Amino acid sequence: MNFKIEHSEGAARAGLLETGRGPIHTPAFMPVGTVGTVKAMSPEELKEVGSEIILSNTYHLYLRPGHEIIRNLGGLHKFMHWDGPILTDSGGFQVFSLSSLRKIHEAGVEFRSHLDGSRHFIGPEKAMEIQTLLGSDIAMAFDECTPYPAEYGYAVKSLELTTKWAGQCRAFQFNNLDDRGGGNRQQLFGIVQGSMYKDLRKRGLEELMGIGFDGYAVGGLSVGEPKEEMYEIIGFIAPLMPQDRPRYLMGVGDLRDMLTAVDNGFDMFDCVMPTRNARNGTLFTSEGRISIKRTEYRTDPGPLDPACGCYTCRNYSRAYLRHIFLAREILSMRLNTIHNLYFYIHFMQDMRKAINDGSFRQYKKYWEGILGQGA
Amino acid sequence: MNFKIEHSEGAARAGLLETGRGPIHTPAFMPVGTVGTVKAMSPEELKEVGSEIILSNTYHLYLRPGHEIIRNLGGLHKFMHWDGPILTDSGGFQVFSLSSLRKIHEAGVEFRSHLDGSRHFIGPEKAMEIQTLLGSDIAMAFDECTPYPAEYGYAVKSLELTTKWAGQCRAFQFNNLDDRGGGNRQQLFGIVQGSMYKDLRKRGLEELMGIGFDGYAVGGLSVGEPKEEMYEIIGFIAPLMPQDRPRYLMGVGDLRDMLTAVDNGFDMFDCVMPTRNARNGTLFTSEGRISIKRTEYRTDPGPLDPACGCYTCRNYSRAYLRHIFLAREILSMRLNTIHNLYFYIHFMQDMRKAINDGSFRQYKKYWEGILGQGA
Repeated sequence: MNFKIEHSEGAARAGLLETGRGPIHTPAFMPVGTVGTVKAMSPEELKEVGSEIILSNTYHLYLRPGHEIIRNLGGLHKFMHWDGPILTDSGGFQVFSLSSLRKIHEAGVEFRSHLDGSRHFIGPEKAMEIQTLLGSDIAMAFDECTPYPAEYGYAVKSLELTTKWAGQCRAFQFNNLDDRGGGNRQQLFGIVQGSMYKDLRKRGLEELMGIGFDGYAVGGLSVGEPKEEMYEIIGFIAPLMPQDRPRYLMGVGDLRDMLTAVDNGFDMFDCVMPTRNARNGTLFTSEGRISIKRTEYRTDPGPLDPACGCYTCRNYSRAYLRHIFLAREILSMRLNTIHNLYFYIHFMQDMRKAINDGSFRQYKKYWEGILGQGA
Repeated sequence: MNFKIEHSEGAARAGLLETGRGPIHTPAFMPVGTVGTVKAMSPEELKEVGSEIILSNTYHLYLRPGHEIIRNLGGLHKFMHWDGPILTDSGGFQVFSLSSLRKIHEAGVEFRSHLDGSRHFIGPEKAMEIQTLLGSDIAMAFDECTPYPAEYGYAVKSLELTTKWAGQCRAFQFNNLDDRGGGNRQQLFGIVQGSMYKDLRKRGLEELMGIGFDGYAVGGLSVGEPKEEMYEIIGFIAPLMPQDRPRYLMGVGDLRDMLTAVDNGFDMFDCVMPTRNARNGTLFTSEGRISIKRTEYRTDPGPLDPACGCYTCRNYSRAYLRHIFLAREILSMRLNTIHNLYFYIHFMQDMRKAINDGSFRQYKKYWEGILGQGA
């Protein structure tokens, strides 16, 4: 087994996911490196902020520079100079959110590139082939990310396709083992869809469990639905998921959402929120979010967050960070991203410590107070 | 004396300029950190590429965030987290090239900010006050950068103003010694103007020498004149400049121009060329300039420059650098800037070694062959 739960408190788990490229301590946040770079960061800086794993996007790398080019250059890790674990998404979400003129067939999805309008087709085998050639440590099964809101009838058909494709992805993996050897093989996670319908979520999960995956992800949340609906699904589905496998809540990165999800037993998260916000000057601190633009920081000699130990907080004042943000300097995006990712990763590390100490409920309550009920 | 010549070959000099914040080995290239950051670089990366000194712009920092704010935050070094030497320009060049509606008076220049149109006045005392409060290690006297081409009559009047202002800057410095103590005092360099008229250049230099400065700069070159004219002035003025003081050719950063200037006895240079080109994907290599966009790099596993030891060349392929450049990623600007600055600084270090070895003429010839006569 690649995954061990070391401690738990209620449903919350502190776990350890082993990969051929190193361990991932959970709960874990995965910074998003869409096109083979986490925006504004070097790989060394990612390590310094504590990242144990990053996510990269199959759809983007397939279109540019192309997965075969990356394979011929030694795989994605070598290409981007990152030797830690990489999870690649399946491309499903991006095909639906970024491409145009897409047509869904039983065999996959026909679409046009958002870059140049060229025509492409990705189905489950193709998605697996791409991820195998990229050489990621964790691959995701190809799914249809059901749009929100969805009629029940559409959600059923969409789920059936996702289940069918999941089976084909699993079969592809069995038949096309990569050459890394057993201990270092690519893991494959299935994705539970089913929109906001509990019976469909349950059915989808059970079908995936019937196929058997290394880990189980929940997709199609944080796509525009009210928070209550998302929390309903999270609370409903988590207890049904296999205890002994990692559980990944895709695309969720709001702090309160992650607290709730960990409380329900989720282990892994990814989101562009810390990196995108950083570039826009919105920073996460021990006292809540701040905008670095604020006039009061003009002469402020203090660090962004006195409670933070990141490179940015150790070496720069709020006044400087405000100045280079207003001047639109590249260093601003760098320093802000370092801070936000450090914050996110330490937020998870602290959750883990709290679970180990039996103080997670307290940690959650403390943070909910800071974040505010409406945040 | 703060400056020692350790070796020379013909007119070319290998020198050592001491400042309170560390030595500068010459010939030296100074990366430009206009608003208190060398674009795309962290201070640690500047050290790693070998920078011993950077330049920062008085005009920009005066307008934003303001020199008084920077002083109250502990000075420019602390503000930007760079503990090495800083040279600040006088603001003269920027007032003439960036601001609008400027009016030249005997006492200084009235202008409108390029940022918000607000009205300002900078004269010699103000320029010195700003540079003193910023706390730079080397300040530049306030000058009028004579536009090109200039009628003789205009050039005379402009030069007279520059000389007058230079005297006022010197007097200001005598009367307003900063509090760093003798060994760590701010040095002041005068700027020779005089357009393309040799008699005016000579007169300007002599007047500055009469006032007495820690170093002598030549301004108003590389402002649109033909290269032959620039080389004429360089060759004419250098031998007239004091042997025992550093000689700084302002705003010049073309490789062939710097070779020629060092050959004539110049010691210091600054230019946005390596940093700006980096962001545009133009890279300096041991075989000449290349554009990272080139289609042939699409699948190229080799480093940018096999002869280079920089972080970029040690860790990334041309294919990756092309990919992230086309994707307009921030890391592209970072890696390209690291490479170009490393190249520039090592280009100077190698000139220095060649002067020490007595092989500078050979070095120059070798590089002229690579750069081409027309480059």
